Amino acid sequence: MTLQNDLLLRVARGEKVERPPVWLMRQAGRFLSEYREVRAKAGSFKNLIAHPEMAAEVTIQPVDLIGVDAAIIFSDILVLPEAIGLNYEMIEKKGPFFPETVRTLSDLDRLHPIEDASNLDDTLEAIRIVKRELNGRVPLIGFAGAPWTIFCYMTEGQGSKTFSVARSRLYQDPEFSHTLMSMITESTIHYLKQQIAAGADIIQVFDSWAGVLGRDLYEVYAIPYLEQICDAITDVPVIVFSKGAFHSIDLIGQLDCQVIGLDWLIEPQAVPMLAPGKAFQGNLDPAALYADFELIEAQTLHMLDQFPPGRHIANLGHGIYPDLPREAVQLFVNTVKNFTYGPYELQEEDDLYQEGGLQFGEA
Amino acid sequence: MTLQNDLLLRVARGEKVERPPVWLMRQAGRFLSEYREVRAKAGSFKNLIAHPEMAAEVTIQPVDLIGVDAAIIFSDILVLPEAIGLNYEMIEKKGPFFPETVRTLSDLDRLHPIEDASNLDDTLEAIRIVKRELNGRVPLIGFAGAPWTIFCYMTEGQGSKTFSVARSRLYQDPEFSHTLMSMITESTIHYLKQQIAAGADIIQVFDSWAGVLGRDLYEVYAIPYLEQICDAITDVPVIVFSKGAFHSIDLIGQLDCQVIGLDWLIEPQAVPMLAPGKAFQGNLDPAALYADFELIEAQTLHMLDQFPPGRHIANLGHGIYPDLPREAVQLFVNTVKNFTYGPYELQEEDDLYQEGGLQFGEA
Repeated sequence: MTLQNDLLLRVARGEKVERPPVWLMRQAGRFLSEYREVRAKAGSFKNLIAHPEMAAEVTIQPVDLIGVDAAIIFSDILVLPEAIGLNYEMIEKKGPFFPETVRTLSDLDRLHPIEDASNLDDTLEAIRIVKRELNGRVPLIGFAGAPWTIFCYMTEGQGSKTFSVARSRLYQDPEFSHTLMSMITESTIHYLKQQIAAGADIIQVFDSWAGVLGRDLYEVYAIPYLEQICDAITDVPVIVFSKGAFHSIDLIGQLDCQVIGLDWLIEPQAVPMLAPGKAFQGNLDPAALYADFELIEAQTLHMLDQFPPGRHIANLGHGIYPDLPREAVQLFVNTVKNFTYGPYELQEEDDLYQEGGLQFGEA
Repeated sequence: MTLQNDLLLRVARGEKVERPPVWLMRQAGRFLSEYREVRAKAGSFKNLIAHPEMAAEVTIQPVDLIGVDAAIIFSDILVLPEAIGLNYEMIEKKGPFFPETVRTLSDLDRLHPIEDASNLDDTLEAIRIVKRELNGRVPLIGFAGAPWTIFCYMTEGQGSKTFSVARSRLYQDPEFSHTLMSMITESTIHYLKQQIAAGADIIQVFDSWAGVLGRDLYEVYAIPYLEQICDAITDVPVIVFSKGAFHSIDLIGQLDCQVIGLDWLIEPQAVPMLAPGKAFQGNLDPAALYADFELIEAQTLHMLDQFPPGRHIANLGHGIYPDLPREAVQLFVNTVKNFTYGPYELQEEDDLYQEGGLQFGEA
């Protein structure tokens, strides 16, 4: 089916666009009262994922209500560890908790191949419903956690500021670490291909805990597995969002992905030089949407000016905070949608290297 | 009194040393069974701070037991907000909690000048006891939280991965934000001068939550207040440790501080160029101490090689994790103490600029 609004895919494919597309991480979320109603009906976060009709409903809400240029399937990166044998609970105001973890090679016997997983069927069914109901209005983003981030939860068992247990495994037991990382990677590829078969038009890989690793470990334990995923996904574009990986943008830039997500700590000007040929996604500080409307608009325009024309997908630098005013989120989206690139040339990779990638805001 | 071991101060003053000094953030802590015994006697973390004899005892333990080149007074950055009117509780396995927070200008009426604070007397008395008992063996480090980090806790009321409430204040209410930041700064200067009068030989300022701000906000809301502190402390050297502020090293480099602390995500090679004339402290990944002994030693030596000779205080890139094996911590300390610089020239600031600051490991 031809998409009526394919801005997002055109940027990912390196084609020209008249303005940047815009969507928001956690756009199907608590800042929308309509989401909270469905979430209340479902009873719990995990129940919402387990009911494809309701998951599809909240996936489409921000397209209808806020006018974003893409939907992202409502699910959770932690359905993947559950699909290979580690169940989790989502504890209100606390986050995920895994009653069992894996920390040694023999623990890995408890895991099973993803082929046996039925919990993923709910999300795959939700994708099919969304595709039907969107009826080509905007693209649908599928997603998974990056292997390192899934490794963090499977070993640590819960959220953490430092993930010191997960990091200890890398130093203490490289064999276990690479084995688990490989198992996660293989399952993730399988799952993402199923999402694409069900209708996902583009994939985002979330490396939410990239920022607890230094470059040395990121290069050894994260990049090779991201590379396997990017190499395996050939039918649709891939966005890699490694939150906090400021030190490894050049390594991410060498992956066979089309878009690199940036958090709000990274200054966009320096990035095109490190990752020639890529498009970028981000990166307004979500807290900037707490400001008054004048400042929100000014900061959104400032952000748009910092990215090279035609190579930018507008987004926040992290997920929307649940208590952000809906009007502020709407203003962000409208400001992007009212922005127009003047005439511009798409930059060739070599130009970016030679001229420092600094042809911004010239349009 | 002349110090018998003044390695730390010599590096901070830019003088030559035969090897890097070494101490560890959270060295007075749970990885030592002797600490846990005193902590159990005290009954709670806050009680331990409130009993100068016991606080002094745990402060000196790592000097006696591990052989570090400096003591750091056992206290908490949150004694400062308490001293100006916001009490906190330390909740086991959860962290600090402030029953009351300040979020608007009128809330600031609840705060009072630090001159009325008596809770600080315990830490000042502990400093006097430590100085007496150390009897010149090693220098004593005093410390405080940086204004931004204290602001985080006073507005958010507890730990957070994003400190989105604290950040929302900066965007929503610059007047409140600058007013509170000024109040914290003034109190911090007063408190640090009292610590120096009581005997602290050097000061470390911990900006533990620098990493939730981008450069723009860090420049406006953190740097000017750090600058006031650095300008006010003239009698002893100052170490500024802004965890996660990879984007602002050059701004920190312009402060009138002598040492810049680095977390484990920053690669040491690039830093001297950004902060000419400074010494650096850090930055082994604390999780590296979970590795086997051979790897710990190799990584410690690798770290030592990455810093310019004579301008490095060896430390971890963050506090010791409580479950790290004592033998691993000891090995880290011993590896540094057995390291010797060959003959070397201290680099002039201009040389660093001109030659790229890359004269490492030439000794």
